[in-house]
Amino acid sequence: MDSLGRSWLLLTGFVLFYFTYLLFGALVFSSIERPVEEELRRDLDALKRSFLNHSCVSAADLELFVSQVLSANRYGVTVHRNSSGPSNWDLTSAMFFANTLVTTVGYGQTAPLSDTGKIFSIVYALIGVPFTMLVLTACVQRLMYPLVLAPLGLLQRLGLKPRPAAAVHFLLLLVLVVLCFFVAPAAIFSVVEGKWSFLDGFYFCFISLCTIGLGDFVPAMQPEQNLKEVYQITVMVYLFLGLMMMYLLLRTFHKMSDLHGLTTFLQLPRCEESDLEDDREPIMENRQGDQKRSQHTQQAASEHLEPASQPSYNSISTR
Amino acid sequence: MDSLGRSWLLLTGFVLFYFTYLLFGALVFSSIERPVEEELRRDLDALKRSFLNHSCVSAADLELFVSQVLSANRYGVTVHRNSSGPSNWDLTSAMFFANTLVTTVGYGQTAPLSDTGKIFSIVYALIGVPFTMLVLTACVQRLMYPLVLAPLGLLQRLGLKPRPAAAVHFLLLLVLVVLCFFVAPAAIFSVVEGKWSFLDGFYFCFISLCTIGLGDFVPAMQPEQNLKEVYQITVMVYLFLGLMMMYLLLRTFHKMSDLHGLTTFLQLPRCEESDLEDDREPIMENRQGDQKRSQHTQQAASEHLEPASQPSYNSISTR
Repeated sequence: MDSLGRSWLLLTGFVLFYFTYLLFGALVFSSIERPVEEELRRDLDALKRSFLNHSCVSAADLELFVSQVLSANRYGVTVHRNSSGPSNWDLTSAMFFANTLVTTVGYGQTAPLSDTGKIFSIVYALIGVPFTMLVLTACVQRLMYPLVLAPLGLLQRLGLKPRPAAAVHFLLLLVLVVLCFFVAPAAIFSVVEGKWSFLDGFYFCFISLCTIGLGDFVPAMQPEQNLKEVYQITVMVYLFLGLMMMYLLLRTFHKMSDLHGLTTFLQLPRCEESDLEDDREPIMENRQGDQKRSQHTQQAASEHLEPASQPSYNSISTR
Repeated sequence: MDSLGRSWLLLTGFVLFYFTYLLFGALVFSSIERPVEEELRRDLDALKRSFLNHSCVSAADLELFVSQVLSANRYGVTVHRNSSGPSNWDLTSAMFFANTLVTTVGYGQTAPLSDTGKIFSIVYALIGVPFTMLVLTACVQRLMYPLVLAPLGLLQRLGLKPRPAAAVHFLLLLVLVVLCFFVAPAAIFSVVEGKWSFLDGFYFCFISLCTIGLGDFVPAMQPEQNLKEVYQITVMVYLFLGLMMMYLLLRTFHKMSDLHGLTTFLQLPRCEESDLEDDREPIMENRQGDQKRSQHTQQAASEHLEPASQPSYNSISTR
């Protein structure tokens, strides 16, 4: 089969697998969550019935009341406890919201109510999201040497060959990130947030650092939270550092995949800087002739695999 | 100033500007949303008082009731209207949830209730998020020729030089994406979803396609929605295509920035494939000698600017 045919077959396979994966997820979520949901519904129905029985409220009045309470709750305003409590839009809370916008985490525990707020959110994110990516990229570039290149050099000096060294380094980095940005914060959240279990904390960290941000768990939302401002700023710093480390991990994984030929196999773009290096001085070790030859063979193979339908933008003259 | 100093100055500037931007956002959001929130709170307080006055419910009973209603609502279960209505975990709804997990949009209008569901969400996203990025990348690679390279070639054949051609092409692509993936869907949503204005629809499209996914607006959540399943699947397809186009737009912008020297100026990694092309056949036009020279000068400048602290991973020998 020619490379173009193989490339389309691979894409078709990807898309089919993607939908199968969604369907599989749907079946599992449905079978896990449906019984729990039904139980909650039954409980809530019983609660409503008992509330109506023990008071002289009409069902219609209660419906109307609950409907308005829920609609206000959608914007973070609750009638529950004291509605004159701390605002969702004090300075640190608003900064927390701005932070979840530009990092694309978007918990949505608070959301703009007014049309002006919605328009400003759009404009703010339009500038803020790319700018945050820029800042994260710039920070990760500076972390590449101390966290990727230096340890890799050390592993090689300890006698490991480059490919196993890259794999060992990636695993070590993964363990470090999981411990410092998932396990430790989850333990802290399970102490600070009264109602969160360790699993809840871990789930919050994962859902946040993947930028999914479901918003079913959001820190510093307890009405009687001590030092709420300091706590919110700490969470913001945690989110920023965590996203930085996730990006570093992703880049390291991408580069390791380049090294192991995975990106070539999946016909993905290789990591940036990948092909610029041939003329540069190696920093750790001198290249052996046979290594250079094997690399060239690999590159030729990669060029052979690239389908004809993917000419590069940069092959157009640059003036 | 040497390039290393300039590089750190730029990073410090970025980080400072980032925090200023967050603070600015906080001030604006706070000043826009606080009065609206206070009005909503007053309305809700009045509603609660009037409800308590016209019924024989005690304030404490109501607090307890509302607190449980709100806690159930956090997981998508409402006592409002008919709590025996359609499940949040029927097959298409669960698929919709799975889709918002793997695309990192994460509205959170429904969220797993059980610990098993939370653990499964983590595992599911761990595989699903990178795989979705892979599928999106693979699709975008196939769209590069018909939507980027072919139109660019056409613009150049019409007499435009490469840089203006790239800028004109980017603007045209932007207009196309805004019309097809923001304006048109917003108009459709404002018709299909009874309570959404055009702005609400546009805001939903923007918040979704940036993967922020606040979840204050989620389609197909009306209890009496006709053809709910078909509607949810259509929204899923819209999200997938929209994210693909956003990614294409981002990649085109990155490549245009390469061409205009913006990535070099900001010391960011250049787009993949950027430096591999010198030996390839140009697809549209033959390169002029002076163009090639100017490109080489630019490349040399870019290498000069790269700080010494950023040696590449690939400069380590590849065996």
